[in-house]
Amino acid sequence: MVELPSAVRIREVGPRDGFQNEPETIATEDKIRLIDMLSASGLKRMEITSFVRPDVIPQLSDAAEVLAGIRRRDGVAFSVLIPNERGLERALELRDRFDEASVFLSASESHNRANVNRSIEESIEGLERTIARARAAGLRCEVVISVSFGCPYEGEVPPERVFEIAERLAAAGCEEVGFGDTTGMANPRQVHEFFAAARERLPGVELTAHFHNTRGQGLANVLAALEEGIESFESSFGELGGCPVPPGSTGNVSTEDAVSMMHEMGIETGIELPALIDASRAAQDVLGRPLGAHVLRAGPVDWTGAQAE
Amino acid sequence: MVELPSAVRIREVGPRDGFQNEPETIATEDKIRLIDMLSASGLKRMEITSFVRPDVIPQLSDAAEVLAGIRRRDGVAFSVLIPNERGLERALELRDRFDEASVFLSASESHNRANVNRSIEESIEGLERTIARARAAGLRCEVVISVSFGCPYEGEVPPERVFEIAERLAAAGCEEVGFGDTTGMANPRQVHEFFAAARERLPGVELTAHFHNTRGQGLANVLAALEEGIESFESSFGELGGCPVPPGSTGNVSTEDAVSMMHEMGIETGIELPALIDASRAAQDVLGRPLGAHVLRAGPVDWTGAQAE
Repeated sequence: MVELPSAVRIREVGPRDGFQNEPETIATEDKIRLIDMLSASGLKRMEITSFVRPDVIPQLSDAAEVLAGIRRRDGVAFSVLIPNERGLERALELRDRFDEASVFLSASESHNRANVNRSIEESIEGLERTIARARAAGLRCEVVISVSFGCPYEGEVPPERVFEIAERLAAAGCEEVGFGDTTGMANPRQVHEFFAAARERLPGVELTAHFHNTRGQGLANVLAALEEGIESFESSFGELGGCPVPPGSTGNVSTEDAVSMMHEMGIETGIELPALIDASRAAQDVLGRPLGAHVLRAGPVDWTGAQAE
Repeated sequence: MVELPSAVRIREVGPRDGFQNEPETIATEDKIRLIDMLSASGLKRMEITSFVRPDVIPQLSDAAEVLAGIRRRDGVAFSVLIPNERGLERALELRDRFDEASVFLSASESHNRANVNRSIEESIEGLERTIARARAAGLRCEVVISVSFGCPYEGEVPPERVFEIAERLAAAGCEEVGFGDTTGMANPRQVHEFFAAARERLPGVELTAHFHNTRGQGLANVLAALEEGIESFESSFGELGGCPVPPGSTGNVSTEDAVSMMHEMGIETGIELPALIDASRAAQDVLGRPLGAHVLRAGPVDWTGAQAE
């Protein structure tokens, strides 16, 4: 088989992407406790919350309290999702509590309109200003491009269009571009071709794969990305999360399932899988329902034969 | 990326592997209706039932009634699971109702002992006789080797041991060898290496991959097998099924999730995905609970943009 990365970087996005999509708002102290458990598991990158308008996403209206309350750990980079300049201004009041700003837009006009009520061009122009201010404040910047592998409203999304958006925001100061398979339309052949082309088109930019498990193909797409040399991934503990539009498009790749697969393949993540599973178990208790992650139920692979009778 | 097969063969094993593992016995007429729906979906290979001892697996004690009741279709090969000569004798009373005999054993002594209470050598000797009689009756023979990628009781299973068992049963007349990841311990790197070696060691034998989705890696392992040129797979509609020992080791790869991924990758299966999903939906109604297959909930990928507002 092709050579695989020996180590990868995983950004846990459940505290933002997951908590945002829960029908019931999670208590702030529970969020803080879960985030502290996650950052103790060896995760080096975590997306903590979002400074969107509280009336639009009330689930994250406690963004400032969460940022202020969580424990800072050496070597763990916290990022927050920033929709626009106004959101950045609110976040910057807690500048010392986080390290990275994550901005976002969609690769299709219809999805961008549905999600943020702007054209892509309007989004890019707004984000260019936002990124400039974030960088002036010393924040590292990532942009996540939603529906990079297909759009539920438009169907196929030409990779060339995705790369053009990525290039412009990289030029504006994003050191990292995340490509979101927002509604789980990607397949491994497409992922292979997409990232082979992206590596050529975007040299010097950190390329991050953000897959959903909507159709059960999440880890197959992770594998395809690994085989193209991609070393940066985003996922959600417990398989929390999804996307607010269209309804039902839930299901980030589970962090524990991805980490389990990578560890079994000899790829380092720096994450202690049992500690990560503990965090998902605690999230199940908070949410009062079983979560979708498989390793959460089955446990890590046990090569010791400990199930011997 | 590497060249992939242009078409694959999928054997649906849910009516045996799935129905066997249901806590409540499914009514015979429901089984027949579901099998008829499956065989109408374009599946060309189906494992229908098992002639194990009815007191051991009462869920399949209606094997003869099911075989007698289902509709035969041109081009659809029915197989039945045969544990031993006695089971074969019972099955042969309905010889014109099926085409293939599937025999099985485990690649580890502990698992074989737990599952069939014999040593591997005793199993091989019994299966050699069984296969000879099955072939004399004109049946094509497959052997499925359980725990080929790892054993919950013994840990690592050397591929060399698996290949030796496969060679002996191929020599005894099995045209096809299925390698079962019975408790979901396989990872894609291992699958790559395993099948690269298997193709060298077992020329002229049809090699079939039978993965479980215990840890969410099922389709990633399917992808790895495809990338090694494997063209034959076994899976269960709805993600039914599993293995009776040890408890909790459930979760075949879902047929609809595998078919969806393959179709999206341009790999032909001959299966009509909507008809397959209809069968899983009908199984949900019979069983009274949601099944695990992702495409069953999310639906096939829609590239038409039909979700436009």
